Amino acid sequence: MTLPKAEVVRAARRASSGMADRDTPFIFDEWYVAAFSDDVGRALLPRKLLGKNVLLYRTAGGEVVALDDRCAHRSYPLSDGTLEGDTVVCGYHGFRYDAKGDCIEVPAMAKCPRSIGVKRYALVERGPLLWVWMGNAEAADPALIPDTSYHTSPEWACSKEYLHLPGNYVSLHENLLDLTHLSYIHAKSFGSPEYARAPYTTELGYGRFTVRREVIPTVLPPVWADPMGLTGVTTAARIAVSAFESPGLHRVTTSFYDSAVPEGERVVGTICTSHIPTPETRTSTHYHIVHGRNFALDDTVATQVMHDRLFTAFREDVDALTKVEVVLEETAPEDFYEISVPTDGPSVAMRRYLLQRADAEAQARAES
Amino acid sequence: MTLPKAEVVRAARRASSGMADRDTPFIFDEWYVAAFSDDVGRALLPRKLLGKNVLLYRTAGGEVVALDDRCAHRSYPLSDGTLEGDTVVCGYHGFRYDAKGDCIEVPAMAKCPRSIGVKRYALVERGPLLWVWMGNAEAADPALIPDTSYHTSPEWACSKEYLHLPGNYVSLHENLLDLTHLSYIHAKSFGSPEYARAPYTTELGYGRFTVRREVIPTVLPPVWADPMGLTGVTTAARIAVSAFESPGLHRVTTSFYDSAVPEGERVVGTICTSHIPTPETRTSTHYHIVHGRNFALDDTVATQVMHDRLFTAFREDVDALTKVEVVLEETAPEDFYEISVPTDGPSVAMRRYLLQRADAEAQARAES
Amino acid sequence: MTLPKAEVVRAARRASSGMADRDTPFIFDEWYVAAFSDDVGRALLPRKLLGKNVLLYRTAGGEVVALDDRCAHRSYPLSDGTLEGDTVVCGYHGFRYDAKGDCIEVPAMAKCPRSIGVKRYALVERGPLLWVWMGNAEAADPALIPDTSYHTSPEWACSKEYLHLPGNYVSLHENLLDLTHLSYIHAKSFGSPEYARAPYTTELGYGRFTVRREVIPTVLPPVWADPMGLTGVTTAARIAVSAFESPGLHRVTTSFYDSAVPEGERVVGTICTSHIPTPETRTSTHYHIVHGRNFALDDTVATQVMHDRLFTAFREDVDALTKVEVVLEETAPEDFYEISVPTDGPSVAMRRYLLQRADAEAQARAES
Repeated sequence: MTLPKAEVVRAARRASSGMADRDTPFIFDEWYVAAFSDDVGRALLPRKLLGKNVLLYRTAGGEVVALDDRCAHRSYPLSDGTLEGDTVVCGYHGFRYDAKGDCIEVPAMAKCPRSIGVKRYALVERGPLLWVWMGNAEAADPALIPDTSYHTSPEWACSKEYLHLPGNYVSLHENLLDLTHLSYIHAKSFGSPEYARAPYTTELGYGRFTVRREVIPTVLPPVWADPMGLTGVTTAARIAVSAFESPGLHRVTTSFYDSAVPEGERVVGTICTSHIPTPETRTSTHYHIVHGRNFALDDTVATQVMHDRLFTAFREDVDALTKVEVVLEETAPEDFYEISVPTDGPSVAMRRYLLQRADAEAQARAES
Repeated sequence: MTLPKAEVVRAARRASSGMADRDTPFIFDEWYVAAFSDDVGRALLPRKLLGKNVLLYRTAGGEVVALDDRCAHRSYPLSDGTLEGDTVVCGYHGFRYDAKGDCIEVPAMAKCPRSIGVKRYALVERGPLLWVWMGNAEAADPALIPDTSYHTSPEWACSKEYLHLPGNYVSLHENLLDLTHLSYIHAKSFGSPEYARAPYTTELGYGRFTVRREVIPTVLPPVWADPMGLTGVTTAARIAVSAFESPGLHRVTTSFYDSAVPEGERVVGTICTSHIPTPETRTSTHYHIVHGRNFALDDTVATQVMHDRLFTAFREDVDALTKVEVVLEETAPEDFYEISVPTDGPSVAMRRYLLQRADAEAQARAES
Repeated sequence: MTLPKAEVVRAARRASSGMADRDTPFIFDEWYVAAFSDDVGRALLPRKLLGKNVLLYRTAGGEVVALDDRCAHRSYPLSDGTLEGDTVVCGYHGFRYDAKGDCIEVPAMAKCPRSIGVKRYALVERGPLLWVWMGNAEAADPALIPDTSYHTSPEWACSKEYLHLPGNYVSLHENLLDLTHLSYIHAKSFGSPEYARAPYTTELGYGRFTVRREVIPTVLPPVWADPMGLTGVTTAARIAVSAFESPGLHRVTTSFYDSAVPEGERVVGTICTSHIPTPETRTSTHYHIVHGRNFALDDTVATQVMHDRLFTAFREDVDALTKVEVVLEETAPEDFYEISVPTDGPSVAMRRYLLQRADAEAQARAES
């Protein structure tokens, strides 16, 4: 009963104090995925994003719209009203809002005052994703939206699914930057025992953090071995690059081949998964996932089988992070500490970055 | 994305700061309906009123009693004990309380101390209603109970029902003072499109706020057109007077007739609905309703049909206010504002009045 | 409506301020029962004790272990991992902990740092009970564990059961020290009307509080009358000694005989019940109970019948205390007071003692 040593706990707490966690305010000046494109049509769709209730819909002309989901008059949820043409009609007293969020009619008034309105958020459609900017509207530059053009490239076969995570988004980013967990959380799905011990390299820039891990030789799990014809091969290579690209996007790119085949003759298959966390509340996250592969493109059976197997694994992450969230919620501050090891380098750097971003926003707000 | 303008939001917040809302303390020096008379008999009935647990019962002689529902000894709910004659026996250690709230026996003591007791609240029976006073006992003057004698008049046919509202009582009062919502919330029950645009007049006294709205011509909804023989008539008149009479009572009186019939020859039917909000908690309200009509008095089928149709509509209000309460709960203070328009005049005056009453009570408590 | 008098309420509040209640911090430097011995085997068992998540398991050699149930790395619940030999393997990134709580392997590191670990709590097996010490480890002296050796004595026939109480442990101790409640809560199980009025004596030491109550003559309830052959006897004696022995143990010892039989010729049967409260959270308690009798030892039918009848009664206590907890939760501080009577002497003394212990711990923490 000598551990944990007091000085170790103190040092761990000092380190944690510089890292984002579930208590860190959200970063608003950033693009996040609000929904899949095909979730949003001519129905009024409510969604909580970064703690705020947002209404999503599509105009008759096909433009996507994000408005504050609260009538400026008496706080009725606009998503509970009706859509007439491109106009949202509040279900309480009939205030009408156009797609810019301007109130254009108050039924009981002959002339609508020009001053009533609700906030409209920038919302940009990019292939299967709708990206929203919840922060300073003047800074909402679509050029800052991460490139995910492979989602619609003919060289990739993609599928997608939404998972709801009852946990903070920082934990999800951390999970994705330390794939040593594949040997444990995913022991029965797509992990393998040697994964956690494989050599890795990292690149830690400002706002971009990557880990490259080479698992050679290995036996590929059926989800990839089968469609690549590597079933039973014990000399397979699995090279994964995990990349935090923004608070709203993490991408994992993994290549597979038979390492017994000389370099020039190898068939290399690559998968690329966009893990897309969007904070819902402090303790829950919208988790959109798009998964693509650049091989066996026309094999629709493989698409379905891979999808089912992969999302079974991603649900294992959701289960694990749900459990972590409960422990964090239940642990008293005086009992809490977390000890980092070298493999945590990228996630520590990422969490420092998130905290710096949040602090910078808080300071900008305080000064404005 | 120019709206809402900062100066509009600032002005709206300034206005709201002078009005009662869900965060305003309850007004205790007031009569509220604790229950329908026939809810209270020889069983011990627990009910939370203005945030306090109250025990209601009726003595063998028929007197109604309201006591604090907490044994003064070790906080067992008295409503979980037994009623022996007019005496309440605590189910934990057997302390006995008479109908005045005085403890008259402690089983383990030969002689009962005279000092133990629980608070008794003034409770007055008026027709189908039991009115309770939770505030300063010396000020509990039954003469202040609003007149609802029509409830038991032979000239009126009445029916009643209790609804539970998961929302603050201020929102219910506000709902009742702005019936432009009939065209929207009640579009499918007893509203009609022209209702929201009809001309209206208001009378704003101190503690009494009324709106009179004349909808002429209109088509009456079946709930009234049918029993009045005005089905299909397109020249009907619907004249509604909404009156806030006290924090515990709002009355809507509506007259119907065929405006094509000359004034002396018209058959005018009138309905009068007592909307009776009693705060339960900050976010929930007991909503007693008594509805009466002064026509087709003996038509018991009409009574049932009207009751069913009306309470379907009143449940639409409950649904709408439940949604508003959720939005209010979830909206961060820095994101909140509410913009009032001219039709809100009565409800703004009413909310100012409620805040003044609450503030005056707070000041009186601070001084005592 | 003259009661409660203001000066009585003031005096009651003054008295309460010196007594432990549901807001009093737990006493950590104390032995509490963590679980029944046979609850803990080769599976990882999570249990919340004194507000902290603890992992319980048994080594291959049979030793019982209690560790903090939170991986020191990223807060995954260790109880959700696996047990390999005596080693707990975290289910997230595979950190391995030995039974001392020391981390002995980090998969991604060639050499495990010596500094990682989780807290181990002293855990001692005594017959059917596992006693845990959650406080200052240096003070964890097994000699301080209360003697419950009768649980395994051949002169006693025992049975046991676990109840979960949604209420604070102080209320349970108070319940046990004032058995006048038998006439009310247990009116239909093992109470009798005269119980509350029977004469009693008390002994109030520091940390040990007893009440001895003599109910003579009485009619025993069937649970004891039947196995003792005293069914229908109206001259029975029932002598109960309730003893608070520690914050984690209360014992009730009751003797029965026929008072009409001269002292030398009487058959005296005794039961002894260990009531074992362990705080789970501020508002919930693990309630382990071991019940023994020193008569009809080989009558296994009696064992079963007594067990069923007794635990029916103990569940009545749980129901009552659950209701009290709800009332305490819902009563505003300005409405709260509790009035004590002479029979509360032992429980008032006990609650003062618990508060002193908690205060002393708080002071020791502040000084360290």
